[in-house]
Amino acid sequence: MATIQNIADRLGISKGTVSKALNGASDISETLRKTVLDTAVEMGYSRIRRSRDEAKKFCILTKNIEYREPHQFGYDFVIGFRQMAEPLGYAVEVVPVDQKFQKSIPYDVFMLQQDYIGAFVLGFSLDDPWMKDFETSHTPTVLYDNYISKNPFISSIGIDNSEGMALAVAHLKELGHKKIGYLSSSFGSHIMQVRHKAFFHAMKQNGLRADPSCAGTSFYVSHCIEKHLPRLLDLGMTAIICSHDLIANAAIVQCQQLGVHVPEDISIVGFDDLPISAYTSPPLTTVRQERLELGKCGFYALDSILNKVYIGTMYLHAQLIVRNSTGRPAG
Amino acid sequence: MATIQNIADRLGISKGTVSKALNGASDISETLRKTVLDTAVEMGYSRIRRSRDEAKKFCILTKNIEYREPHQFGYDFVIGFRQMAEPLGYAVEVVPVDQKFQKSIPYDVFMLQQDYIGAFVLGFSLDDPWMKDFETSHTPTVLYDNYISKNPFISSIGIDNSEGMALAVAHLKELGHKKIGYLSSSFGSHIMQVRHKAFFHAMKQNGLRADPSCAGTSFYVSHCIEKHLPRLLDLGMTAIICSHDLIANAAIVQCQQLGVHVPEDISIVGFDDLPISAYTSPPLTTVRQERLELGKCGFYALDSILNKVYIGTMYLHAQLIVRNSTGRPAG
Repeated sequence: MATIQNIADRLGISKGTVSKALNGASDISETLRKTVLDTAVEMGYSRIRRSRDEAKKFCILTKNIEYREPHQFGYDFVIGFRQMAEPLGYAVEVVPVDQKFQKSIPYDVFMLQQDYIGAFVLGFSLDDPWMKDFETSHTPTVLYDNYISKNPFISSIGIDNSEGMALAVAHLKELGHKKIGYLSSSFGSHIMQVRHKAFFHAMKQNGLRADPSCAGTSFYVSHCIEKHLPRLLDLGMTAIICSHDLIANAAIVQCQQLGVHVPEDISIVGFDDLPISAYTSPPLTTVRQERLELGKCGFYALDSILNKVYIGTMYLHAQLIVRNSTGRPAG
Repeated sequence: MATIQNIADRLGISKGTVSKALNGASDISETLRKTVLDTAVEMGYSRIRRSRDEAKKFCILTKNIEYREPHQFGYDFVIGFRQMAEPLGYAVEVVPVDQKFQKSIPYDVFMLQQDYIGAFVLGFSLDDPWMKDFETSHTPTVLYDNYISKNPFISSIGIDNSEGMALAVAHLKELGHKKIGYLSSSFGSHIMQVRHKAFFHAMKQNGLRADPSCAGTSFYVSHCIEKHLPRLLDLGMTAIICSHDLIANAAIVQCQQLGVHVPEDISIVGFDDLPISAYTSPPLTTVRQERLELGKCGFYALDSILNKVYIGTMYLHAQLIVRNSTGRPAG
């Protein structure tokens, strides 16, 4: 990995100037500072090399994830991460970033400029510009529900979605269901692809038939419900697993409007266990994402990369929360 | 989880007697002690509940794994684990266990009796009696290269074998190979099943043909080499991936005896990067298991279970070590 001396040599300037530029000193021109930062990133310079006594600062990068209130999806992630990091002397800052911002600055340059030694990344989709940067980044980074292969500095954490889907299908099979459908958001997010594949795998493992017509996928929740829910009901499905709780909740509401009873006529299973899901009517059976643990997990993975233990993936055991949206099939 | 009081109530004896029995006091009869331990295990009592000030002791359980000398497979696992655990005040003991011993005492009873708060398990095969115990155990346990689903107290760690196999196949494809075979030990170990599946998956991902005849599997290395190597050569394979380095090494030796040159006539890839593999002739291209990191990883997973972060799986990034046993195919 490059040192400050290497960067100085490459640019033909002094070590002191490089150091000043890296640390944002005011007597360095913006142009020179940018050149130094870009070169540092290109050469793989990283703050990890700096002594343990200096400020240690992590960021949690969020996109489209609310986290300020306890009922919001990101809240427990942030709390869990901070519960692990802060007692060890790390500072943690939450930084929402949109695509426009990501386009404005390369990821490693941003991290170096802000003096972050690592990031925990929540809510990115596959078309986020920094997803490309992660492939070659030298900054310790942990992605929730996204995956980058082969780069030792990037870890992936989440729940074990295959295990979660297996629990959901086994639960429905035990109740007596044989015809099970699947409703999903479209595949712009990594995790939607994973769960889709896991559904068909779990069906096969349980000896249940599932051809492509059993699944319905749309970008918009409303579209997914309007287009695919009646189709799955027509196919004689007695249970439907949804790729996340928002679809499951919308499916329950739509069934009520169609005069189809949950769970008497159709069982519905969600994914995530959003704070709202205990209060749907009926309360939703769902695969839980233990968000406080996932936040801690994010810290574990980052800390291990800093200790040169290059974790690729770290998945929590999945947990099925059985509530009243599932029951025995009619007849 | 059960308390000492719960155990006392169940057995109709005093809390003090339960406590004495759990701590192996000499004035408790062997029969009573056994009854208390069995009840404690049955009720899910665990040492985790005890105060942090008491002795904290982990064990590394090994089966068929040598670990005392630096050239032995288990050595770095033990060192890595201890490097993480001991500075934090944990004691670590290595305990070799064979099947006979496992049959003599249930796993949780053994752990409670010995006052271990968690175990890192190396070298178990699928037919080891304690593998069954792990399904319902309440003791924090981390399995290297084995997997137990659904029990939150059991984690699985290893390298990402799918990533490793993908690296191996992509490397061979890049060199120009199209016909690639696979030699493997039989499926009595979990990881042999994983790698076998990963081979076919990686071939498909790389757009290469691989039907079942491309793979050869035997219990004994010698049998695998004698029976399947000539067959794969006859099929026109220009490269062979082996499920572990011992098979790869044997394949290299056998090729020499057959007058087949490595890598000119056939490229050979191993798995594990055993200490010996840099010194085979030619030196072996292989997927590395970073054993020191895996030892640290084992500690990370145990520590996280103790912190109630129930990791199911934790896999390190795989790394392909390219040496001289692979080259361009002839012609």
